[in-house]
Amino acid sequence: MSKPSLPSGTRDFGPDTVRKRSYILNTIKAVFEVYGFQPLETPAMENLDTLMGKYGDEGDKLIFKILNNGLNDPKNIDKARAAFEQVMAGKNDKNLTERALRYDLTIPFARYVAMNHGQLALPFRRYQVQPVWRADRPQKGRYREFYQCDADVVGSKSLYNEVELTAIYAEVFQRLGIPVEIRLNNRKILAALAEHCGGAEKMMDITIAIDKLDKIGMEKVKEELLERGLSADQVNSIEAYLKIEGSNEEKLAAVEQLLGHIESAQQGLQELRFVLELAGATSVSPNGKAQLVCDFTLARGLNYYTGIIFEVRAIGVKMGSIGGGGRYDDLTGLFGVPDLPGVGISFGVDRIYDVLEELGLFPETIAVGTEYIFFNLGEAESRRAFQLMQELRALGKRCELYPEAVKLPKQFKYADQKKIPNAIFIGSNELASGTLTIKNLLTGEQREVDDIREV
Amino acid sequence: MSKPSLPSGTRDFGPDTVRKRSYILNTIKAVFEVYGFQPLETPAMENLDTLMGKYGDEGDKLIFKILNNGLNDPKNIDKARAAFEQVMAGKNDKNLTERALRYDLTIPFARYVAMNHGQLALPFRRYQVQPVWRADRPQKGRYREFYQCDADVVGSKSLYNEVELTAIYAEVFQRLGIPVEIRLNNRKILAALAEHCGGAEKMMDITIAIDKLDKIGMEKVKEELLERGLSADQVNSIEAYLKIEGSNEEKLAAVEQLLGHIESAQQGLQELRFVLELAGATSVSPNGKAQLVCDFTLARGLNYYTGIIFEVRAIGVKMGSIGGGGRYDDLTGLFGVPDLPGVGISFGVDRIYDVLEELGLFPETIAVGTEYIFFNLGEAESRRAFQLMQELRALGKRCELYPEAVKLPKQFKYADQKKIPNAIFIGSNELASGTLTIKNLLTGEQREVDDIREV
Repeated sequence: MSKPSLPSGTRDFGPDTVRKRSYILNTIKAVFEVYGFQPLETPAMENLDTLMGKYGDEGDKLIFKILNNGLNDPKNIDKARAAFEQVMAGKNDKNLTERALRYDLTIPFARYVAMNHGQLALPFRRYQVQPVWRADRPQKGRYREFYQCDADVVGSKSLYNEVELTAIYAEVFQRLGIPVEIRLNNRKILAALAEHCGGAEKMMDITIAIDKLDKIGMEKVKEELLERGLSADQVNSIEAYLKIEGSNEEKLAAVEQLLGHIESAQQGLQELRFVLELAGATSVSPNGKAQLVCDFTLARGLNYYTGIIFEVRAIGVKMGSIGGGGRYDDLTGLFGVPDLPGVGISFGVDRIYDVLEELGLFPETIAVGTEYIFFNLGEAESRRAFQLMQELRALGKRCELYPEAVKLPKQFKYADQKKIPNAIFIGSNELASGTLTIKNLLTGEQREVDDIREV
Repeated sequence: MSKPSLPSGTRDFGPDTVRKRSYILNTIKAVFEVYGFQPLETPAMENLDTLMGKYGDEGDKLIFKILNNGLNDPKNIDKARAAFEQVMAGKNDKNLTERALRYDLTIPFARYVAMNHGQLALPFRRYQVQPVWRADRPQKGRYREFYQCDADVVGSKSLYNEVELTAIYAEVFQRLGIPVEIRLNNRKILAALAEHCGGAEKMMDITIAIDKLDKIGMEKVKEELLERGLSADQVNSIEAYLKIEGSNEEKLAAVEQLLGHIESAQQGLQELRFVLELAGATSVSPNGKAQLVCDFTLARGLNYYTGIIFEVRAIGVKMGSIGGGGRYDDLTGLFGVPDLPGVGISFGVDRIYDVLEELGLFPETIAVGTEYIFFNLGEAESRRAFQLMQELRALGKRCELYPEAVKLPKQFKYADQKKIPNAIFIGSNELASGTLTIKNLLTGEQREVDDIREV
């Protein structure tokens, strides 16, 4: 058998990495819980029907499809051949593949809500932390299997939901110790900008161009807008809008001056002011790590957002956004259940991991697995050690007995490799006196104690 | 769009179910941790090569394969056609499918150890809790996506590992409140039985037949053994062996009498006695919920076990085993790394869930998500409510504000549907007096307090 390997774009997570990832995920989940969000889990496999056509043509190509089993059973063989021809013609066919791996958590959530909305208490506040799969070309920071971590409220138009999601962002990054900017904008203001520049049908063109500002810069954005058929005057208005700067209040006033004559801008500004005021007054405290920033250049790629949109960036680290989200009018219309608006946010777990590494913010204690190792010094000694270890475990301490009575240097090396901070020795002396010797493997300090509870 | 549905054999886990499942999984993980086991996570997708041929012909058929992307790209089209013909001929071909979903956690673990054994501290104590996928025919209690929950120690032959795994079983079911029998046998004793009945080559025939004893009964097992070519005398010996009963000591003595002249039986009995003594002396206390039972009819289906084998059954519930495992000589030989023996156990999470439901053993508190709902009684009132809610959340309490100022019966209905135990009212009176009213929604008891910390 050839040397085993992992599929490209996938990762094993060894013990240290799992502990660090769990630290992040447990921190986020704990905040979701105090905010009254409820956990949901959906299966990795969805019917292909459920996923296809939801992510655009490019997205469709990145969905991992599962081959049906038993294709070469005599009863399936003709159908499978016909289906294969369909697939080669660029279509889908249930007789070759009827299931696929989930591509994100939003569509499975929408599918769940559509299937269960009769029984759900609305508004439904759910969080979901599960892996998703995409057949993207793997590169640094981009994987084919990665976790998404979402919270959504559906069935409510109240802006208190936006306030709470903002406060969740602030609280999570406060707990993780990451200084962040929570950037806010409102699609209603972008809609007003489009109206100001020739009509609502320009909305997508403008949004797509603005979304690239960070990457390609102002001049290229202007070029693209001209190419997309906007006039020089219109492009100048957009430039004036994109160049708005200052404090939040100054920026809000400038947008009001530029677009205040349009109703959707008025509404968008009012919504932003409400969220800034309420979220700013609570969790996002002056001592907090989170700053709320109106960023009118923020567009977000997804076209289903209709209200306030969010993006989070770590301050002092060169990295894309570590969170994002927004309000949408219609979660489940695609699945036959209309009129369910909502708002949601997402955390970029892999990037948050990288930020914590770069800033050295993972607590040192989470690297420790086993806290105490009992060295194995022989048959009678290890029996006694085993009894004492069980007492220590009953106190909630993580410990293990080296299972073989091999030479001590080998046992020390094992403890060192596993970064175990304490070793307990029970040799013939300790056995005779009923004591035990404990050594701090970091400082070298050693002492004898009478009772296991004194370690 | 047609009504959405779930792929057959898969499940959504709504909030209540996730909470109950997390209770089980967190209980098990906490015990793994105090026993010094370390978490590992591997990707859902493995290379098809890694999985094929590891689970027998029947297993191979149940592996979910992932269709390669871009099959109808002009550069792939000829290879894809040729590959499809291979698949229709019952073979695998990387040009159609090169990846598959993991079928269990053991082979990915073996693949991980083979890839990383140079860096691993041995013995390596790992636990892993992740879903697996099998294209089995769905039926009651059998799913196409389900969780496995494994702990293994590799790189050690010491029987202390068996002792610890036995103690882990006892401790987990003690914490969950489930009375269990932990049944033990030793493949070495089955090997001795085979030797006694005509030679080692009979081992698999005997094991396979004995494994069916529970399902088909003694007479059918005897018939099967005769069909498999054993003589009437040999079948009588096996029947005598299978009918051994009494206390553990009585059973051990009876096996000794029957097979004690064979060395592997002697060794097998000695190992069982060691584990029974040490495990019995600690966690498996007289007050404990776990009974250690020698069960010489226990065979376990998998043919890679070579030493002590385990099976756990809930006492007082009609259900198959809720855990199982055993010792193996060679984890990673298939991946080119020889001589890594180990021992492992597994928990049947879905069945444990069903046992806890049937016995009514889930703690009532885990059904509670939100602890306090703040009713929304208007604009100024909800602003005040929101501030107080943030203070309560800072104290770690799970709460939410009903986001819209709708009529009270609707808000009460929502609280009832979500089983929220407490409601907090801040109306115009409370706003004026700076107090708040809290109502226990279970008892109806209502009181006014001055300070949010008094709720």
